[in-house]
Amino acid sequence: MKKEFDLKNLKQNTAVLVIDMQNDFASQEKNTPERWNQIHKIIPNIQKILQKATDNKIPIIYTREMHRASGVDLGIEIDFEEQHCIEGTPGAEIIEELKPKEGDYLVTNKRRYSAFMGTDLEILLRGLKVENLILTGAFTDVCVLATAMEARALDYRIVIPEDSVVGTNSERHKAALKCIDYIVGYITTTKKMLEAIP
Amino acid sequence: MKKEFDLKNLKQNTAVLVIDMQNDFASQEKNTPERWNQIHKIIPNIQKILQKATDNKIPIIYTREMHRASGVDLGIEIDFEEQHCIEGTPGAEIIEELKPKEGDYLVTNKRRYSAFMGTDLEILLRGLKVENLILTGAFTDVCVLATAMEARALDYRIVIPEDSVVGTNSERHKAALKCIDYIVGYITTTKKMLEAIP
Amino acid sequence: MKKEFDLKNLKQNTAVLVIDMQNDFASQEKNTPERWNQIHKIIPNIQKILQKATDNKIPIIYTREMHRASGVDLGIEIDFEEQHCIEGTPGAEIIEELKPKEGDYLVTNKRRYSAFMGTDLEILLRGLKVENLILTGAFTDVCVLATAMEARALDYRIVIPEDSVVGTNSERHKAALKCIDYIVGYITTTKKMLEAIP
Amino acid sequence: MKKEFDLKNLKQNTAVLVIDMQNDFASQEKNTPERWNQIHKIIPNIQKILQKATDNKIPIIYTREMHRASGVDLGIEIDFEEQHCIEGTPGAEIIEELKPKEGDYLVTNKRRYSAFMGTDLEILLRGLKVENLILTGAFTDVCVLATAMEARALDYRIVIPEDSVVGTNSERHKAALKCIDYIVGYITTTKKMLEAIP
Repeated sequence: MKKEFDLKNLKQNTAVLVIDMQNDFASQEKNTPERWNQIHKIIPNIQKILQKATDNKIPIIYTREMHRASGVDLGIEIDFEEQHCIEGTPGAEIIEELKPKEGDYLVTNKRRYSAFMGTDLEILLRGLKVENLILTGAFTDVCVLATAMEARALDYRIVIPEDSVVGTNSERHKAALKCIDYIVGYITTTKKMLEAIP
Repeated sequence: MKKEFDLKNLKQNTAVLVIDMQNDFASQEKNTPERWNQIHKIIPNIQKILQKATDNKIPIIYTREMHRASGVDLGIEIDFEEQHCIEGTPGAEIIEELKPKEGDYLVTNKRRYSAFMGTDLEILLRGLKVENLILTGAFTDVCVLATAMEARALDYRIVIPEDSVVGTNSERHKAALKCIDYIVGYITTTKKMLEAIP
Repeated sequence: MKKEFDLKNLKQNTAVLVIDMQNDFASQEKNTPERWNQIHKIIPNIQKILQKATDNKIPIIYTREMHRASGVDLGIEIDFEEQHCIEGTPGAEIIEELKPKEGDYLVTNKRRYSAFMGTDLEILLRGLKVENLILTGAFTDVCVLATAMEARALDYRIVIPEDSVVGTNSERHKAALKCIDYIVGYITTTKKMLEAIP
Repeated sequence: MKKEFDLKNLKQNTAVLVIDMQNDFASQEKNTPERWNQIHKIIPNIQKILQKATDNKIPIIYTREMHRASGVDLGIEIDFEEQHCIEGTPGAEIIEELKPKEGDYLVTNKRRYSAFMGTDLEILLRGLKVENLILTGAFTDVCVLATAMEARALDYRIVIPEDSVVGTNSERHKAALKCIDYIVGYITTTKKMLEAIP
């Protein structure tokens, strides 16, 4: 039932989302050696995707989760996670390896897992006339999953190179991709995707 | 980090959501024997939950996915699924075993996986002063997952009795629950939950 | 600064919204003679617009405000207005003179003044590839105003024939149009608009 | 039908919104003498309200309209207004007379007239347990009106001191207040409001 998606379509009307690759989530010091190992592997893949995007004038959008220091905007998240990505702290900054360059877009003040909620992401995507979204970043089973579900509901075609997203652990990474792959989006690899975009 | 949730809290400020238990999704004829077998198992569990909810004056909300016959409201879903739950057809009706009774709430005209999108569910939940949501129904890895993610973002505490939701297959059922269990909501069993609500 | 809008554009990518022309708002018995007099005048204008729309295959969308009898979905509206448009009552039905015909769209279960909030109107408009919205109906300074403001924010071009909308009184009718006319949408007359659509 | 609102309620569960008092909207150089005259009058009133709010630990929230320099997030607004409030320019800064102090909240990256759309304002208000909103700032008939309409739909009680908001002109200022006063919110004066909050 699910139609094939030709990765060549990504040449046009496409944006790359780099989700929450911030120090508090994706730096070596904030992660177990096991998870850092995974994060470490996706960084060069994301870099390649960003290079290809730049070469093809495909817009790049970085999202940043960010919370007020008082915790006022955390809602019930505080029952599930410790405070993180506090405004004005290094933890909220994007990791050194993936620093946005001029012309890239920032969606900042993201307070929830989905990058659409309480942000101007949808306004930005409509302004860019985007139809397809390449999702990269962290974490596959949390913010990537939530963003993919909402993006699909808003009729964006989702492509996720499975080696450019990292899960909170390996099991949940696979679990989230399995759910998305069914009828939400398209799972591929960085290599296949980059080869399809000439 | 994730705090314990005392199931006794479900006595108050709680609603039960029965998600998309409609003929096109949950009837014997529309399913493989394997999936029907799973659906068949959750129906008595949902019935018990609804009885307990009724006894405790916990509001019950049925959602119904529903699409105009022309397909105009399907968006890109048509690339992932065949048309389903068409307005005015038996396929859009709730299955006989779970027919809403007087006083139950219907959220109808649900066009997307999340029961919040394009519906009045949030208005209804605020009117009911709901803080906790018990999710039941179909399918764990599609509409239940999307609804759970959005409900959590809106600060509702999600409880899912794992034997009162059914997945599109057994693997994805487990995968979705694994993702939700991490930091989105609380997975339990129908038995444990019912015992906790006196 | 405000650019001219060529009414000929309404030939394409346009929909007509008939807002809340229901018995509880727009019937003779529910209105003072003065307001009924105003309502009475806009009905033939709306009829002409609907005829022109039908001839040109311009989609027609009727919205219906509707509330559950218990009042659970009214929110604080109950401090401003009496209960109205209760589901299943004649008051919630569209007035006889403007009954939808086959092929027209209904956006039902509208709980708030804006026809977008808690409804599938945006999903429907995107499905119809609409860019321009002709607003007609009741009341200029309440639901028409709220709908116009949100439609504009969602990048729909709003055209309002001033003699096809009715205000809660004549002063507020003019006040709302004055606000909309500035930088929200385009105010015209039924006659001018119909002449521009060949 | 519209119930009285006791201004004493503003002692609790209340926030003050200072809407778009930025250089591009509210500085002397960007305005005609007539409009500057109006703006000039509301500034001391807003200052008094902010002082009272601070004394009573009522949260103060500043909104800032802000657009990317490329115009990508303007949508069709560009057909109605010239570019304004560009990120990183002085025009986007809040005017000197009303500079936020430590502990005040900023809702930034507001792309549309309503301060709720594409921002985290609703998340913030829920976090602050706000029920009542005092609206001040610019312009009565554009961003104040749009924000009031959406706030009311989200069940916030709106109070507007008419001499603490400024319209795009005097006629539209009055027109917007007339529409809001009917069934959207409560219009008062700065003096009356401040006297009611002990």
